[in-house]
Amino acid sequence: MIQLRSLALQADITNAKISLRLLDQTLLPHEEKWILVETNEQMIEAIKTLRVRGAPLIGVAACLMIAKLAIEKTSVPELLAKAQALYEARPTAVNLMICIDRMTKLIKSNFTIQNTVDLAVQIFNEDVKLCEQIAENGAAFIQDGDQILTHCNTGGLATAGVGTALGVIRKAHEQGKKIHIYIDETRPLLQGGRLTAWELKKLNIPCTLITDNMAAHLMSLKKINKAIVGSDRIAINGDFANKIGTYSVAVNCFYHQIPFYVAAPYTTVDTKCENGNQIPIEQRSAKEVQGVSGSFGEVLWAPAGVAVYNPAFDVTPAKLVSKWILDKAAYSKKDIEQGVLKSC
Amino acid sequence: MIQLRSLALQADITNAKISLRLLDQTLLPHEEKWILVETNEQMIEAIKTLRVRGAPLIGVAACLMIAKLAIEKTSVPELLAKAQALYEARPTAVNLMICIDRMTKLIKSNFTIQNTVDLAVQIFNEDVKLCEQIAENGAAFIQDGDQILTHCNTGGLATAGVGTALGVIRKAHEQGKKIHIYIDETRPLLQGGRLTAWELKKLNIPCTLITDNMAAHLMSLKKINKAIVGSDRIAINGDFANKIGTYSVAVNCFYHQIPFYVAAPYTTVDTKCENGNQIPIEQRSAKEVQGVSGSFGEVLWAPAGVAVYNPAFDVTPAKLVSKWILDKAAYSKKDIEQGVLKSC
Repeated sequence: MIQLRSLALQADITNAKISLRLLDQTLLPHEEKWILVETNEQMIEAIKTLRVRGAPLIGVAACLMIAKLAIEKTSVPELLAKAQALYEARPTAVNLMICIDRMTKLIKSNFTIQNTVDLAVQIFNEDVKLCEQIAENGAAFIQDGDQILTHCNTGGLATAGVGTALGVIRKAHEQGKKIHIYIDETRPLLQGGRLTAWELKKLNIPCTLITDNMAAHLMSLKKINKAIVGSDRIAINGDFANKIGTYSVAVNCFYHQIPFYVAAPYTTVDTKCENGNQIPIEQRSAKEVQGVSGSFGEVLWAPAGVAVYNPAFDVTPAKLVSKWILDKAAYSKKDIEQGVLKSC
Repeated sequence: MIQLRSLALQADITNAKISLRLLDQTLLPHEEKWILVETNEQMIEAIKTLRVRGAPLIGVAACLMIAKLAIEKTSVPELLAKAQALYEARPTAVNLMICIDRMTKLIKSNFTIQNTVDLAVQIFNEDVKLCEQIAENGAAFIQDGDQILTHCNTGGLATAGVGTALGVIRKAHEQGKKIHIYIDETRPLLQGGRLTAWELKKLNIPCTLITDNMAAHLMSLKKINKAIVGSDRIAINGDFANKIGTYSVAVNCFYHQIPFYVAAPYTTVDTKCENGNQIPIEQRSAKEVQGVSGSFGEVLWAPAGVAVYNPAFDVTPAKLVSKWILDKAAYSKKDIEQGVLKSC
């Protein structure tokens, strides 16, 4: 039996079946409940509702779902149809699409159950290794005494490994660097206030939670001297999509002359995407902005019927980025201009 | 009997007593409950907990409280002590202090019950008129088709009149200009999502509610072409304090070359304050950031014990301001540099 284990995903794989469990992230930090995912519809629901989230992790989870369907003797045409349904579960994070493309290419060209399972396992293990490499590459930019802003959640809950931006932070901490993290709560879904705060507490990394609109004020007080975020899709010109609010962080870093880093594996680079304008932005339900809901309860504070705009992501242009920290290397603006992302 | 009426404050004044009622703003928008304020301690509690809020309105409410105490035959020394306690209820908004200074100066120099009541009534009526003048002066900067960002609440709930920044918006709307307002929800206490959304709906002014971190993204999409905010204290060099998050709006406006206006009465100008560094910033409870609470319920989403930073205000430097819209006139950077605020 192969046992895959990450902070938010568990798979037990035998020749007869795959048992796939997800830590339900909508219930964190108050409840740590693992849910068994048995059907493709359940996985799609889990992705759409953010029970499983993080651009790299949803790619990995979707591939394991396809492997599970293969072991369950799903016919190739049906397997491809189900893979397509997974592909469409969320529109912005490209890792999902790139990972599923790898699976479907194999299924179309050289399908066996074993091949399919092997590739899914490989994609999981690859993601662990990619995180490790990103963490190594990124930690080089973190110094003793740094006070670092991060946005959303980019750690063990968002990947199969130690994370992207949060993996860099974790690595710097493990290297003995004294750092302090400011966590944007990341409205509307509070991935910072719920998930990053939970992870950093678990890791004993000193941190302070703030509302998103406080970051600029802290920069003006010189209490933040670096910012690092993850990404859901990077265009070949270096523009990238990430959780809504990232762009505002980038503009504020630019104004305050604070280095702004993006950390992601190569599976986040969309080599078909020339620039940020081509990245589709997921629009989500008005209810998310009119209040909050989770295992902690559900409240609605806005007046009934008020109109809402709720883009889940925004695009940060390359000109605001100091370094692109990928698994192969950390790239400068010059590297990006020379087209290094084209061959990712 | 004198009856003073505003959206959030009511006073019935006879020779024998003042009956003072506040619309409990912590319960809005879901519940419109008027509370009778009978003691100084109740008024201080109402100010501290934001049942009554908005820099101009807390100044007016405090003065009416002092008048009420005077009618109730409070001795002059006790009256001055109670005025001092009101003075200290919240540290950032200077209107409270300036208004109370006017009351105590009169009490010290020429105390009669009638004088004291008259001055409080005068301060209420002055605030109504100041709002009207700000609205007139500011509406000149609003054009047909404008899409305007505002932060926090600066309307009829924050003043005795039509408001400051929101008064400008209301006047432009009444002048028949087709405008659309984007409302920052204004974490942590959601004065935008609860109060401004409620006021704009009542006024039938087209609006869209967003989380604070979406404003920059909307600017990059050219969906916001102006921003207008209120203030809790303006230094004579034009730096000003306002609700946390205002500074981030100002930086983003600067980056996107969008005009950024601050609107306030002269009672917000602290002529003793040379620059923004001298403005004390109120720090509030961690709980406000760890979750939300109100008449809609109370939820806590952050992991127990996570450290929090919770400044209620930030300071925006003069260099980021396009115009200071006051009651006397709208001032340019040049006017400010020439010291126009010194004699406010």
